[in-house]
Amino acid sequence: MINKLSGWNDTIVAVATAPGIGAIAVVRLSGERSFEIVNELFPSKDLLELASHTMHVGVLKEGNSAIDEVVISLFKGPRSFTGEDTIEISCHGSPYVQQRIIEACVSKGARLARAGEFTQRAFLNGKMDLTQAEAVADIIASNTRASQRTALNNIRGGFSDQLKEMRDQLIQFAALIELELDFAAEDVEFADRTKFYDFISRLNASTRQLLQSFQLGNVIKNGVSVAIIGKPNAGKSTLLNSLLNEDRAIVSEIAGTTRDTIEEIMNINGILFRLIDTAGIRTHSIDVIENIGIEKSLQKMGSADIVLYIFDVHTETNETLQEQVSIFNKASIQYILTGNKADGDDLYHPTFNTQTGISFISARDNKGIEELKEILFKKTVQAEPESENTIITNARHYEALQQVQQSLDDIKNGLDNALPGDLLALDIRRCLYYLGEITGEITNEDKLDYIFSKFCIGK
Amino acid sequence: MINKLSGWNDTIVAVATAPGIGAIAVVRLSGERSFEIVNELFPSKDLLELASHTMHVGVLKEGNSAIDEVVISLFKGPRSFTGEDTIEISCHGSPYVQQRIIEACVSKGARLARAGEFTQRAFLNGKMDLTQAEAVADIIASNTRASQRTALNNIRGGFSDQLKEMRDQLIQFAALIELELDFAAEDVEFADRTKFYDFISRLNASTRQLLQSFQLGNVIKNGVSVAIIGKPNAGKSTLLNSLLNEDRAIVSEIAGTTRDTIEEIMNINGILFRLIDTAGIRTHSIDVIENIGIEKSLQKMGSADIVLYIFDVHTETNETLQEQVSIFNKASIQYILTGNKADGDDLYHPTFNTQTGISFISARDNKGIEELKEILFKKTVQAEPESENTIITNARHYEALQQVQQSLDDIKNGLDNALPGDLLALDIRRCLYYLGEITGEITNEDKLDYIFSKFCIGK
Repeated sequence: MINKLSGWNDTIVAVATAPGIGAIAVVRLSGERSFEIVNELFPSKDLLELASHTMHVGVLKEGNSAIDEVVISLFKGPRSFTGEDTIEISCHGSPYVQQRIIEACVSKGARLARAGEFTQRAFLNGKMDLTQAEAVADIIASNTRASQRTALNNIRGGFSDQLKEMRDQLIQFAALIELELDFAAEDVEFADRTKFYDFISRLNASTRQLLQSFQLGNVIKNGVSVAIIGKPNAGKSTLLNSLLNEDRAIVSEIAGTTRDTIEEIMNINGILFRLIDTAGIRTHSIDVIENIGIEKSLQKMGSADIVLYIFDVHTETNETLQEQVSIFNKASIQYILTGNKADGDDLYHPTFNTQTGISFISARDNKGIEELKEILFKKTVQAEPESENTIITNARHYEALQQVQQSLDDIKNGLDNALPGDLLALDIRRCLYYLGEITGEITNEDKLDYIFSKFCIGK
Repeated sequence: MINKLSGWNDTIVAVATAPGIGAIAVVRLSGERSFEIVNELFPSKDLLELASHTMHVGVLKEGNSAIDEVVISLFKGPRSFTGEDTIEISCHGSPYVQQRIIEACVSKGARLARAGEFTQRAFLNGKMDLTQAEAVADIIASNTRASQRTALNNIRGGFSDQLKEMRDQLIQFAALIELELDFAAEDVEFADRTKFYDFISRLNASTRQLLQSFQLGNVIKNGVSVAIIGKPNAGKSTLLNSLLNEDRAIVSEIAGTTRDTIEEIMNINGILFRLIDTAGIRTHSIDVIENIGIEKSLQKMGSADIVLYIFDVHTETNETLQEQVSIFNKASIQYILTGNKADGDDLYHPTFNTQTGISFISARDNKGIEELKEILFKKTVQAEPESENTIITNARHYEALQQVQQSLDDIKNGLDNALPGDLLALDIRRCLYYLGEITGEITNEDKLDYIFSKFCIGK
């Protein structure tokens, strides 16, 4: 597996903290020459003599030229993130200083790390399996309680453990069945078929549960995109403000998460809802149907997970509303109908009282907004994000699990039809293969490179 | 001094790394409760039992809810940046995770740090003087070799030492002269006036040198702004490209330094030259004189340190060039005249051969560009940025040093006119006051707050 990973023995270096200016920044090295390289740049102490997990203050120098006053943190392999000798250099957070430190390390023999290479090394050195490595990228990208929780659970091996258990039990049965093949002439059954059948059924149920969690996992990881559309003066901007105002403080506290689009993200029960700016919701009114034509509007709506159609209860007729609904249905677009400018505390309006599934609001008076959020949440997030169960968030895992389930179905059919052991063994091997692919026990280099290339540099 | 600094005994917390997503981020706490607070969030070890300058891996938890797997770095006061007990929490670089850690620390009793508060505490705890503290902000903002070098020299006490020496010697003389006052009736002279005069002259010379270094210091710290102007088709964009192309690789390596304006910064001998986009140099042609009128164009040019006037040697006449020059002179604008589209290897053009001070180039053929850069450098940077001398980069220091020089002149005059000791002593005290103000030995709280408020949060 390793032969194709060129530079595997190199000592790698990268800035590990976010780009830009901060009070401090951290440059990280990993590889067998880490200590040697930094030692040449750090004259005040002999790092080779010092204990792991200790920190040392001093001046980093390239020849006679001082680069910065830094704190050097030492991690001796295998007691490090990568499993290799690792050094973290904590410097002043100037991009120029960071760059000079990187250059100095490179001049002493380090190589710039590829994206994800630190985590890839951790995986290759057996510090974590592939699902844990992938969860490292997920936790870095996490932006809600639910996504952080799911990723951390996976880093800590929640999903890995479940897969490992499935795999271990399956291997036992596979061994017994393959043993039967050696004694084929004697027609013995070492593997208890009834027990095996029960086991496969249980496995099938867990796999199905994991597969079902993917919808939730996807929502947790990527959020839900919502297009707010409606005729001019239906109250789109007012609604947007009502939806966001309650949440803005929370969102804006998470510095740097969203930059330009910060106003258009809201958090409902730990799930991010992205209010898609199909044509600049905040500044222009989107008169989807009238201005840009049905076709184009559908295209834009199609890119959203759900469309929130807002109308003015005083000007919309039951007829025009039905037309709108049939457009949504024809295009298989999930939608919520929102009657705005409803009056009174009960937000009731006679024209639409027979119409079911309309949420009445008064965006101006901030009425019915919480209920609308709840509806939005229930329609798009079909399970409890706080559940203790393992949640699949990764499309690669989902696809492999689909193959696992297919194999399990085949095994079950085989058992139903009393298939001979050698054919059963083939299906079991296929099932094991896909389970192993998820954790990285079975993999190929191209896939590995692809997985880690999606990481950021420095991780 | 400390009474006005409310919250001085609080334990403070902030993200110390740059905002945004990185592989890792560092949250820093400082104050007497740091260990106690983090200990409550880190169940796997008792931090109070552990040695300073060690690191510990574990899960940070708030109650039963895991926040992240982190590395905890312990610095026991006074062996820390601030001089107080300090903890750095190295976490996964998700802004959400950073935020949760901050919130958890706050819930246990920490307070969000004000801008510059860590460094302010370092100053107040005597870990550094004010010039060193200010240099911390400077090194974080440094973006060239020269600015990093100057700031690091100041952090390491280069300037402080020089000031301290000046101050110590002055104090000796002040003491002797004040002693004379006690024996005023006896008309003795403890302080050797000739020696003192020599000393004051030397002090005056060093102060003058420091003051003179400010022009260079300012250029090192803030760069030089250059406006490229010229008639349409004079070759402004081509020149801009020629100037930048050579340098782009270097600039773009410094990740995150400039973002939007990255194409318009070049580095000549370690000094940043900012090519001012008076009207979108890259996209539009700026026909300053014809399009926006002389007045407005002068206003824009006035904001630049130097104007680079580029003209086409084939279409410009000596007459129009003289007109242009007289506009610059009248407005006291520093300028460089650049004759573009000059042909041949010697870039000679007969029309202007009598005109001195024109640099001929061929922007298209990339000829004469290096020479032009050298001229730009020499005209704006009037000293060697690699000099070993202390360089003043801070306007506050410059103003105080001007006062120091004024006092030294007064002392000198006093000696020349054989002023009585009590009057001399007053001038010496004034000089000592301003020297002390630079290092922060003499200061007031408002000024301190102002100085540190310009720092970033987390430093």
